Amino acid sequence: MSRTVRMNQGVEWALHGCVALSWVARDRAIPAAKLAELNGLPAPYLNKQLQALAHAGVLRSTNGPKGGFRLARGPEEITVLDVVLAIEGEGEAFRCTEIRQRGPFPTPRRDCRVPCQIASVMHDAEMAWRRTLTERSIADIAAEVEASNPQVRKRICSWLDSSS
Amino acid sequence: MSRTVRMNQGVEWALHGCVALSWVARDRAIPAAKLAELNGLPAPYLNKQLQALAHAGVLRSTNGPKGGFRLARGPEEITVLDVVLAIEGEGEAFRCTEIRQRGPFPTPRRDCRVPCQIASVMHDAEMAWRRTLTERSIADIAAEVEASNPQVRKRICSWLDSSS
Repeated sequence: MSRTVRMNQGVEWALHGCVALSWVARDRAIPAAKLAELNGLPAPYLNKQLQALAHAGVLRSTNGPKGGFRLARGPEEITVLDVVLAIEGEGEAFRCTEIRQRGPFPTPRRDCRVPCQIASVMHDAEMAWRRTLTERSIADIAAEVEASNPQVRKRICSWLDSSS
Repeated sequence: MSRTVRMNQGVEWALHGCVALSWVARDRAIPAAKLAELNGLPAPYLNKQLQALAHAGVLRSTNGPKGGFRLARGPEEITVLDVVLAIEGEGEAFRCTEIRQRGPFPTPRRDCRVPCQIASVMHDAEMAWRRTLTERSIADIAAEVEASNPQVRKRICSWLDSSS
């Protein structure tokens, strides 16, 4: 059985977009259509993800004929978690609805100042997940991509530079 | 901004259900309607979650007038992850669609035998999340709930026993 509730597909798109942007000169804005073409993605939906990244302060967006998107700070200062939360939202995946306070034997309110044990386990797992995503930056991933495919950066970079 | 794609609410229901079942005599099946009443939940939807748990081998389901659900093995042998995956599905939350193989500079197929660097980071995070959920069993949570509310087990247990 596959996961019923998957992560937003935009997370993958946004991460690939940020890696590509990390290779371009910092003062150079790249249009969403160009990034979409590079990754074989539909431009309107990718644009939506890029807007979410800009809203979260990961990208900077500029308008006009030379407009587009660029990283808002150095790629070594953007963690994978920054990108994931920009797309998925800041909240935790598990939401406790205080089931312990319902039914014929509700836990008294005064005993509910600490989180429910179930919510607590789910929170610990979310924190472990976040820690892993915090330990890796866009710069780390870009370097790994380049190490496995030494031509890719140069090619993508000159293609983005030449025609945007 | 709250998380756009949250975890299935059934995860919370299923975990509370398993904790309650861990308190009942092992040979005693509890009807879904009874567990729903105990937790103040709508019976048809909780029943769907319990069926998923039975399908995954976490619960055993029996039909007939004394039918219902019970744990398929000891609560110390059921991890929180077992319950979460039974409801959410076994697959990982992040799904790689091989974006690196698209666009004007696709990574050659032969270089794609190892996972994409982005998929790899997301997988590491998923594993960290799963490890945390594997480290805790239904028995652990039940013990913590009981420690914080010493009467709850006895009360719930006798209520479930008396009227099911």
